[in-house]
Amino acid sequence: MEPLLEFLQPLAQSGGKTVLLVMDGLGGLPHPETGLTELEAARTPHMDALAKDGSCGLSMPVAPGVTPGSGPGHLALFGYDPQRYVVGRGVLSALGVGLSLGPQDVAARANFATREGDIIVDRRAGRISTEECRRLAALLNERIRLDGVSVHVEPEMQHRAVVIFSGPGLSPHLSDSDPQKTGVPAPEVRPTAPEAEKTAAVVNEFIRQAYRVLEHEHPANAILLRGFDRQPALPQLPQLFGIRAVAIAYYPMYRGLARLVGMETVVPGPEPKDAIAKALELWEEHDLLFIHVKGTDSAGEDGDWARKSRVIEAVDAALPPLIERKPDVLLITGDHSTPAALKMHSWHPVPVLLWARTARKDRWIQKFGESECARGSLGQVRAVELLPLMLAHAGRLVKFGA
Amino acid sequence: MEPLLEFLQPLAQSGGKTVLLVMDGLGGLPHPETGLTELEAARTPHMDALAKDGSCGLSMPVAPGVTPGSGPGHLALFGYDPQRYVVGRGVLSALGVGLSLGPQDVAARANFATREGDIIVDRRAGRISTEECRRLAALLNERIRLDGVSVHVEPEMQHRAVVIFSGPGLSPHLSDSDPQKTGVPAPEVRPTAPEAEKTAAVVNEFIRQAYRVLEHEHPANAILLRGFDRQPALPQLPQLFGIRAVAIAYYPMYRGLARLVGMETVVPGPEPKDAIAKALELWEEHDLLFIHVKGTDSAGEDGDWARKSRVIEAVDAALPPLIERKPDVLLITGDHSTPAALKMHSWHPVPVLLWARTARKDRWIQKFGESECARGSLGQVRAVELLPLMLAHAGRLVKFGA
Repeated sequence: MEPLLEFLQPLAQSGGKTVLLVMDGLGGLPHPETGLTELEAARTPHMDALAKDGSCGLSMPVAPGVTPGSGPGHLALFGYDPQRYVVGRGVLSALGVGLSLGPQDVAARANFATREGDIIVDRRAGRISTEECRRLAALLNERIRLDGVSVHVEPEMQHRAVVIFSGPGLSPHLSDSDPQKTGVPAPEVRPTAPEAEKTAAVVNEFIRQAYRVLEHEHPANAILLRGFDRQPALPQLPQLFGIRAVAIAYYPMYRGLARLVGMETVVPGPEPKDAIAKALELWEEHDLLFIHVKGTDSAGEDGDWARKSRVIEAVDAALPPLIERKPDVLLITGDHSTPAALKMHSWHPVPVLLWARTARKDRWIQKFGESECARGSLGQVRAVELLPLMLAHAGRLVKFGA
Repeated sequence: MEPLLEFLQPLAQSGGKTVLLVMDGLGGLPHPETGLTELEAARTPHMDALAKDGSCGLSMPVAPGVTPGSGPGHLALFGYDPQRYVVGRGVLSALGVGLSLGPQDVAARANFATREGDIIVDRRAGRISTEECRRLAALLNERIRLDGVSVHVEPEMQHRAVVIFSGPGLSPHLSDSDPQKTGVPAPEVRPTAPEAEKTAAVVNEFIRQAYRVLEHEHPANAILLRGFDRQPALPQLPQLFGIRAVAIAYYPMYRGLARLVGMETVVPGPEPKDAIAKALELWEEHDLLFIHVKGTDSAGEDGDWARKSRVIEAVDAALPPLIERKPDVLLITGDHSTPAALKMHSWHPVPVLLWARTARKDRWIQKFGESECARGSLGQVRAVELLPLMLAHAGRLVKFGA
């Protein structure tokens, strides 16, 4: 948690209702022809009206120049310092396939791979089909037996899988078996802390058995493990601030991240309007409703300017019923930038708009977008500072000091 | 180093080419008649074009209200927290005369002074000529012999000199012999840490012998020492980020500061265009080219508005070949402000312009200058955050977290 939240926790009181609407990868870069970003090019009359009736700014997810993954990007929006709470690759992959980890579980991200003798010749086994991945995972689950430790291989897409080891006294302090390059053997997993010796032996035994099970398969005759971690024990938002929080997200990873901080989770339909409709259903029983929209990020990753703008327009078109329901606070932003110009996540700060009856009004803002937000009254904020602002505008923080 | 750089180091990868162009003391204050600062009054068509095609802001060198010396100002631009890495006066003076210090060296800044009996009556010996300073330094170097420690007196300008003690087990933890006022005797040098007792004795023996050598000189019949320090062991930029960095600076102190962080150094001609021409010569073999322009600071210190503007115009006029060479990142700023109105360094934030293909475009900026930069999309940045931004825009930082 951000030290700021620890400071604020004793000030918590009950209060109003907050909607946190996250368009994944919202921030963009100007199109070389129009000079407008994806958000600036989108027709967004409702967001524009909220922007000039609220406070705007630019949010820095982690630190200057740092490009965040989905984990750090969301933890920051939930108020948790992503440099302090690092969620390992294995845990994020488990969250991504919808698995919840228990306190005895250690998870790793796995690749099916191709080896010739001991030498890894393809770290992705020619990107085998998802179906083949499922068959191999089932095979490993059926055949591998470890002493005192249960293991489960969960298939993802193509060559990707998650491996979860479960048993008393397991430690996540392990080096990777994935060499990250070809032409070399996969190294043994080594303990990076003394208490992980037993776990390293268990994992290496798993890999030995897996190699035997996969021996006559082709091209996926090896498995590489990396990013061992266990689910981090994060302070929980409901206990900290007495808020009943719910995540409304179509993709499992974002529900998993929300569960890490104590949110309930709900699966809406795939469209922005479905998520907003679900939020309205859940309205009475919750104080903080986190709505996640994935399409902006996917379009950005694909370099598809027009599609990213259209997803933003679909969100804007879905807003009226939400606005009519009169939340006390409505914060609209992204977890990071994914400019279509770069086809990847980036370090650029993200437009943010905070609407509340108690907000200052940036009347000079014409359009919700990167350039206009640069002259908003919120200025440059760190993403971890947004939850405290939402709590304050929801009337949930008492005065500090006499 | 800034904790931020430690956090970024594991994210480093190879990438593009960056130019860091520093106009020393760039920031200014408005002229009472025109209302324009030195930079705002200067004709700078190339910088203005870069500003509106890039991102602008104001950079705070150290902390609010803090007026930085050259050392802290530059360390911050190199990414090192100047509150954490303090370069002593002695070391800075040694760097200023082009000396490199070894691990056994302790340096002090020295003044030739005038005494009557034991009482210091002029801390600058009537600002003797540089030639006289050279003669006296040579005299001291010829006559003084210390047991097991070698000593070297290097003349600077007028009454100023640097004294370097070299030998095993020397410590920099010493009080000054310079009383900082007249009418009192010069105090003995005292150890400020137990391990410095031997060094204090050596330095006091040096001062006794110097007083004897200078006994019949006039007015420089004494020497005062202050700012004992040894060269700090800073993490090196090439090792941290795999960048081949070079400093192109006419004045030795800036080359010395750059060497502290692992840059190579090159001496260009005295004019801005000479420094830029040298950068183009060195282009292929370097990833980070730091160009230092001194004239802005000197003019500011002299209170010469027009000359400071002219130096800025000369830099602008020299830019086209640099721009045509298409650096991936071009960052133009100063290490601190030196307003002609104040005739000294000041605490005011410094205009900064970051041009890169991946930068947001501040189309609303009309002119590179203090007032316009105050509404740039970079907002108010800390100077130590600029190196991370340069690395990011050069594509040199991988994603943090999955």
